[in-house]
Amino acid sequence: MAIITLTTDFGLKDHFVGAIKGTIYRELPNVNIVDISHLISPFNLHEAAYIIKNAYKSFPAGSVHIIGVDSELNPENKHIAVKVDNHYFIGADNGIISLIAHEYNPEQIVEINIHDYIETIFPVLDVFVKVACHIIRGGSLDVVGKPLLEIKQIKGLSPIIYQDKNQIVGNVIYIDNYGNVVTNITRKIINTHFKSRSFELYARNYRFKKIHDRYSDFINFNIEKHKRNIDGEKMAVYNSSGFVELAVYKSNLQTVGGASTLLGLNYRDTITINFE
Amino acid sequence: MAIITLTTDFGLKDHFVGAIKGTIYRELPNVNIVDISHLISPFNLHEAAYIIKNAYKSFPAGSVHIIGVDSELNPENKHIAVKVDNHYFIGADNGIISLIAHEYNPEQIVEINIHDYIETIFPVLDVFVKVACHIIRGGSLDVVGKPLLEIKQIKGLSPIIYQDKNQIVGNVIYIDNYGNVVTNITRKIINTHFKSRSFELYARNYRFKKIHDRYSDFINFNIEKHKRNIDGEKMAVYNSSGFVELAVYKSNLQTVGGASTLLGLNYRDTITINFE
Amino acid sequence: MAIITLTTDFGLKDHFVGAIKGTIYRELPNVNIVDISHLISPFNLHEAAYIIKNAYKSFPAGSVHIIGVDSELNPENKHIAVKVDNHYFIGADNGIISLIAHEYNPEQIVEINIHDYIETIFPVLDVFVKVACHIIRGGSLDVVGKPLLEIKQIKGLSPIIYQDKNQIVGNVIYIDNYGNVVTNITRKIINTHFKSRSFELYARNYRFKKIHDRYSDFINFNIEKHKRNIDGEKMAVYNSSGFVELAVYKSNLQTVGGASTLLGLNYRDTITINFE
Repeated sequence: MAIITLTTDFGLKDHFVGAIKGTIYRELPNVNIVDISHLISPFNLHEAAYIIKNAYKSFPAGSVHIIGVDSELNPENKHIAVKVDNHYFIGADNGIISLIAHEYNPEQIVEINIHDYIETIFPVLDVFVKVACHIIRGGSLDVVGKPLLEIKQIKGLSPIIYQDKNQIVGNVIYIDNYGNVVTNITRKIINTHFKSRSFELYARNYRFKKIHDRYSDFINFNIEKHKRNIDGEKMAVYNSSGFVELAVYKSNLQTVGGASTLLGLNYRDTITINFE
Repeated sequence: MAIITLTTDFGLKDHFVGAIKGTIYRELPNVNIVDISHLISPFNLHEAAYIIKNAYKSFPAGSVHIIGVDSELNPENKHIAVKVDNHYFIGADNGIISLIAHEYNPEQIVEINIHDYIETIFPVLDVFVKVACHIIRGGSLDVVGKPLLEIKQIKGLSPIIYQDKNQIVGNVIYIDNYGNVVTNITRKIINTHFKSRSFELYARNYRFKKIHDRYSDFINFNIEKHKRNIDGEKMAVYNSSGFVELAVYKSNLQTVGGASTLLGLNYRDTITINFE
Repeated sequence: MAIITLTTDFGLKDHFVGAIKGTIYRELPNVNIVDISHLISPFNLHEAAYIIKNAYKSFPAGSVHIIGVDSELNPENKHIAVKVDNHYFIGADNGIISLIAHEYNPEQIVEINIHDYIETIFPVLDVFVKVACHIIRGGSLDVVGKPLLEIKQIKGLSPIIYQDKNQIVGNVIYIDNYGNVVTNITRKIINTHFKSRSFELYARNYRFKKIHDRYSDFINFNIEKHKRNIDGEKMAVYNSSGFVELAVYKSNLQTVGGASTLLGLNYRDTITINFE
C-alpha cells in the first residue's frame, strides 16, 4: 500500500490529526498513514526539518510526506509540492523543505493552485490531503500546481570548519527524548576534514577525547559487573543519524536528568572540536 | 476498508489502547483503526464531545466511533449504540452523544445488552469492540441491543443571545494545543442574528473589533518584513470549525505563552460581544 | 493482515518511531503496525514488562512484538527472538521477556546473529525489524539466530505470602494514567491462599475492608443522585488485568489528584493485607 506520512505541530489531544486521517481515508480507503511526529514545537521549522530528514529515508520511494507546520496560506507563505530524492513533500514554501533535502536537487517543484476549486472548512490541510491523494493515485504535479524554479532557501545552523586553525565550531540542533544533545557536527565532516587525527571536544566545562560508536562502548566488560561504576557516564557518541551527540549513559530526564540538564546545554549552544 | 475510531481518556502510556487495537484486529484483520484522541482529561465529557464533534464528519459515512470516556457500566450509566448523521457512536449513555450530535435526530438507538453473553476481563471495552465489529460486518443494531427512544441529554455551554440588548454572551469551551481559546460563539450564530453589524468583543481586559478569517489576516504584507512587529499579536479569529477563537499569533505555550496564559482566560470564562 | 507491535522508550516526538514504521513498510507493505506504548520510562524494564504483559494477549496468536527498551547490542546484552505463548517477542536478552511471560515455557529461543550480514545506520532497530518481517513472512527462527536454551531471568517484585501469619505483603508496581496505584497482589493469589476470608488491606495510613469489582461498586444507587457524596472516594478494586489497585473515584492527576498523590503511594511502596 502507498504511504502518506504526517508531521505537524498539532499535538495529540486536539481533533486536527484525527480529522486529517478521516479526510485521507475518505479519498483513499487503502493507504498506510504514518505519524512521524505531531509534537513539533509550534512553528519550529528547524526542529521539524531535523525530525523529517532523519525519518523520511526509511520510507519506500514514492512516499508522500505532509508537513503541517507554519502552513497557513498567505502572500508570503505559498503552498508547494516538491519531488526530491524520490520522495514527495507537501508543505508551505517557508524553507522547511530546503532544510530537509538540501543535499539534493529537486526533480520537480510546483506551487499548488487548487485552492479556488475546493470547498473546505480546514483549507490548509484539505489542500495538502487533496494533493497527497492525487499523487498517490498516480497524478502528476502539473495538474495541481504551476511549475516553480526553486523553493525558498533557509540556512540551517551549519558548523564552521577552520581548516587552518584545525577547528570545527558547531552547535546544538536538537535535544532528544533522553535529553541527549545532538550537534550539527557529523561523522562525514570529521572524516572529510580531519580524518583519524586526535582531538579534544569542548562542551561548556566538559571535555571529550573520543567519539564512541555506541553508548556502551566505554564500558570495560572485563571488569565484573558489580565493580563497574557506569550509570551517569558522560560521553560523546555518533548517533544513529551520524551526528555527534553528547549523552549520559542511561539518562532519564524525569529522574536523574539527561545530558541537556546535566551538562547545561541548550539549543544553539556552541560545541568546539580542536584537532592536534 | 471500514473505519473504527477511538477517543478515550486512557492516555498513551498504559496498555489499554494497545489492548483495544489487538482485540479489534483479532476480530477484523482488515479495518482501519484511527486514534482521534487518547488525551481527553479524565471523565471530561464536554472536552471529549468537542473533539469528536470536530473530527467525526471528516470520516466516511458508516464509520464507527468508540468513546471510552466515563464508560463503566452501572445502573445509571448504560451502554448504548447510536446511528446518527450516518455515523455510528458507541459509548455510555452519559450525555456525551447528545453533545456530539445535538443538531441531528438519531436514526436508531439501542441499549447494548450483550454483556451476559461474552466472557471478558476488560468488560467495557470488549463490549464496545464487539459491537463495533458487529456493525462493521454489516450486523444490525437490534441484534446487540434493545431499542431506546432517546439518549440522555446534557446541555453544553450555549451562548446567550440578547437580541434586544444587541449582545451575545458566550464562554470558553476549549483550549487547544497552541493555547488558543475556543469559545462557543460561532460564525453561524453571529451571521444569523447580527449579520454585518459592527461590534466589540470583550475578553477580560481585551477588546477586539474584528474577527479574522485566518491567523495572518491582520498582517500588512505591503510593509517590509523586517519592519513589521507581528509575533505575539492578539486577535479574534474564526477557527477551522467555525468557532470564534482568541489567539496569539505564532504562540507557543512552552515558551512565549499562548492566548490562554497571555489573556488569562480559562475554561468556562465569559466572552461578550456587543453589537452597535 | 499480520501484526507487528512496538513498545519503546523512544517517546513520540523524535523521528525514531516513524523511521521504524517506514522500514517495516518498505519490507512488508501489508502489515498492521500497532503502537503499544512509546512512553516507557527510559530503560525501565519492569514498567515495559507490565505494559506488554497486559496488552499482548489481546492480539492474535502469531503476532510479533518488538521491544525497543535498553536494546543496544553489547557483550552482555544479546539480541534474542523468543516464541512463547504463541506470540513472538524480539528484544534484548536483558530479562524483560522473562518478566512478560514468566508463566510459560518458551517454545523456541534464538540469539539473533544476522548483525554481520546487514548494513545499517540504526543497527538495533533495523535488526529487530528484519527479524520481525522474517517471522511474518513465515520464516523460521533458526535462520536468523542460533538456538539458546534459556533467556536471562530477572525477578519482578513478587508479593510475599505468609500463610502462617495470614498475611500478604505486596508492592506498588505501576501507576496508571489516572494516578491509580497498581499492586502486584492479584485476585488469583488471594483466591488461592485466603479465599473468602475477611481482611484488612493497609496502604500507608489508609485501610480498606473490601476489594471492589468495578470502580462504581461502592455507590448506593438507591440514594438520590444529588444526595450522594462520591467523587474522591478512596477504594481498593480489582483492575481489568486482575491486580489489586488503589483508586480514587473519578480522579484526575491534573486537577483533584489521583490515588498516587492523594494516598502518597509511590512505585515499590508496601501494601499489606491481613486476613482474619
